[in-house]
Amino acid sequence: MDRPLQVAANGLLDRRTFLRGGAAFAAALTAYEVAKPAAAEALTDDPWSKAPGETVTTYSQPSRFEQKVVRTLTNPNGEPRTQHARTPLHLLNGTFTPNGVHFVISHAGNPDIDPGMHRLVIHGLVKRPLLFTLDTLARYPMVSRMTFVECGGNSAPLFSPQPIQATLQALHGLVSCAEWTGVPLATLLEETGIDPKAKWIVAEGADAPALSRSVPLKKALDDAMIALYQNGERLMPGNGYPMRLLLPGWEGNMNVKYLRRLKLVEEPAMSYYEARTYAPILPGGKAYRFYFLQEVKSFITHPSVGLALRGPGLYEISGIAYSGNGRVSRVMVSADAGKTWAQAAMQEPVLSKAFTRFRIPLRWDGGSAILQSRAWDDAGSVQPTRAQIIAERGEGKDVRPVTAFVSQHYNGPTSWGIKSGGEVKHVYA
Amino acid sequence: MDRPLQVAANGLLDRRTFLRGGAAFAAALTAYEVAKPAAAEALTDDPWSKAPGETVTTYSQPSRFEQKVVRTLTNPNGEPRTQHARTPLHLLNGTFTPNGVHFVISHAGNPDIDPGMHRLVIHGLVKRPLLFTLDTLARYPMVSRMTFVECGGNSAPLFSPQPIQATLQALHGLVSCAEWTGVPLATLLEETGIDPKAKWIVAEGADAPALSRSVPLKKALDDAMIALYQNGERLMPGNGYPMRLLLPGWEGNMNVKYLRRLKLVEEPAMSYYEARTYAPILPGGKAYRFYFLQEVKSFITHPSVGLALRGPGLYEISGIAYSGNGRVSRVMVSADAGKTWAQAAMQEPVLSKAFTRFRIPLRWDGGSAILQSRAWDDAGSVQPTRAQIIAERGEGKDVRPVTAFVSQHYNGPTSWGIKSGGEVKHVYA
Repeated sequence: MDRPLQVAANGLLDRRTFLRGGAAFAAALTAYEVAKPAAAEALTDDPWSKAPGETVTTYSQPSRFEQKVVRTLTNPNGEPRTQHARTPLHLLNGTFTPNGVHFVISHAGNPDIDPGMHRLVIHGLVKRPLLFTLDTLARYPMVSRMTFVECGGNSAPLFSPQPIQATLQALHGLVSCAEWTGVPLATLLEETGIDPKAKWIVAEGADAPALSRSVPLKKALDDAMIALYQNGERLMPGNGYPMRLLLPGWEGNMNVKYLRRLKLVEEPAMSYYEARTYAPILPGGKAYRFYFLQEVKSFITHPSVGLALRGPGLYEISGIAYSGNGRVSRVMVSADAGKTWAQAAMQEPVLSKAFTRFRIPLRWDGGSAILQSRAWDDAGSVQPTRAQIIAERGEGKDVRPVTAFVSQHYNGPTSWGIKSGGEVKHVYA
Repeated sequence: MDRPLQVAANGLLDRRTFLRGGAAFAAALTAYEVAKPAAAEALTDDPWSKAPGETVTTYSQPSRFEQKVVRTLTNPNGEPRTQHARTPLHLLNGTFTPNGVHFVISHAGNPDIDPGMHRLVIHGLVKRPLLFTLDTLARYPMVSRMTFVECGGNSAPLFSPQPIQATLQALHGLVSCAEWTGVPLATLLEETGIDPKAKWIVAEGADAPALSRSVPLKKALDDAMIALYQNGERLMPGNGYPMRLLLPGWEGNMNVKYLRRLKLVEEPAMSYYEARTYAPILPGGKAYRFYFLQEVKSFITHPSVGLALRGPGLYEISGIAYSGNGRVSRVMVSADAGKTWAQAAMQEPVLSKAFTRFRIPLRWDGGSAILQSRAWDDAGSVQPTRAQIIAERGEGKDVRPVTAFVSQHYNGPTSWGIKSGGEVKHVYA
């Protein structure tokens, strides 16, 4: 075989091209030709090779050259309104989000909670109401799981009638993935006992808005967790320190931060965030009563807006897929606006309700192309097209400059238009 | 069954005790009794529930209440000698190490490298010497993998004739685990081509000491990686920014940081760190020529020195196991100094050459006990006893105050003596 196998239009190559030992491997690599020929003399001693460096500190910070790899803020001065901090998904790689840049939405800032004073009470329709401190929770059996948390309003800019020219961070930056460690809620409910009349749990946070959401008891007994650690260390202040409810795969704000109360009840409380903000209104005037699930979704992170291609040749196309239903089962990538598709490789291990990094090689000929990804999950769901979503739910409401467009649960494709110079534009296709 | 099954002496319970639906589950939990009875009125509004909190920032930092969850430094003023920064393993949980507290050993501080100027050259016995920038490497196919990195000198205090009373951080804090993303070295070597005479690669860093180590070509073609991302973001300055060699499962300093040169050669270079520091001398006067592998190892993190038990009753015993050979296949825990053992549960997914979190419940009766863990890997290796290690390699050399004891590759057990008041001491048993 002289050239690696093109499996879809505009230069998409077989995902196995770069597996070592693959038939097309050597041919593909000889054709890479992005590195320059070099002799050892090419290495000069830069200033940092000639003098001692900086003293190691107690807690690492990124290099000063990575100052752009931070969250963008909608309310940097902490005015009395909601604050959004978006994850720079286009500048990260791998399968999860480091704590420094995990997304945050805060309705009244991050409370400065003394963990020694914080209490969690489980009461209502239980046999024995119980009060838990961090010290008592530390004695219970714990689990760790990698899972994403996504705001129900993430990707709202995709409801705009015209494609908004913005980075992936602005378009989809209200989703992150972390390893959470804590106590299964089911364990605590076994200890309190459950009155058979209980069907819902109202979860309430200790921050000033006392944000509360109603959670079906069934979810609480399935995979809900009282999360105490985020990526190995204690939760970040913006992510619920010292404890939060974790409902893998469900709408972000239901994962109540600063959790202080779980009240078992017969009916949902119809609290502010479930009766108003997160009850999306449909074109006919009806509203979703509840929209818990974050459905299967994917987007290409490399390249994307702001990350131009630099001349023809081989590139790795890479992105993220995830589903609140479970594991991602397949990701397909197109370079011709969805006319032809090729299957991407998925980084193992593919974990349920977690980010899955997908990758596929592209031999870009320097011409225009439109890149898209589409994911399936093991529940059989697939990303709908944007047209299907808009037909069902209507276009979004423009409320700039605050959040550009308001509508929720967009899980259609994202299309990147590659121009002949290599620039990447957000397009609808 | 009235009580959960005790499977080893001093209160170790079956690891399946807390699986929901397990026969012993309800009985075990009723017996937990560490949470206090509560009414809803138990919740008072603390100051943070009554006023807006702090403004969300571009890059999160831990809560001010977590100021102790940092690395300990041997050379905080950056004097002209080696600096060690140890991971607070006893204060973390889950299966890997956040970037803020990943361990660092630095022989001349962290170089302040401009990533736009940094170059990697592959030369020597290759067909086409090549020069790679970060931009060109970004086009190559990447992989992500969770793997630990451990200093060959980690756990040196365990060579002390008497058990040193210090935290897990002081005893074993020179190991951490992260998700590394980068380009397989094999891919780059396929592109340079390899002269059949080449058997070794000399890897050199761009920091002032130009640390270099010789790596067998076979390892380079197996699972070596040019790592560009650490837990999703670019490498930390102390961990090799902007790129390092990653040799999963092999001695830390071979994972050359600030990597700028890979020279293919016929024989190992016998550089400073392989000919002197990391060539441990045996009691008979001979030395290990090379000791690449970090062998199977485990220790209990909770409880450990500094983390006392607080009264009798149920606790979760939790720890970390790992092996440079591959996956951990089994972890056994003893509460009676190794006379009887019980199998611990391992957090899925169990990944090759990565931290595996193990857990087992203990019903502590308030009396004295000695906790140990012992791990096996899927290559069939098992942790030796401390006596076996000392018999083979001798006791360590006391060079306090710098690093307490010098000797290498201790992978025997660590024993925690629980005193009747709940205090934890480091003991040999």
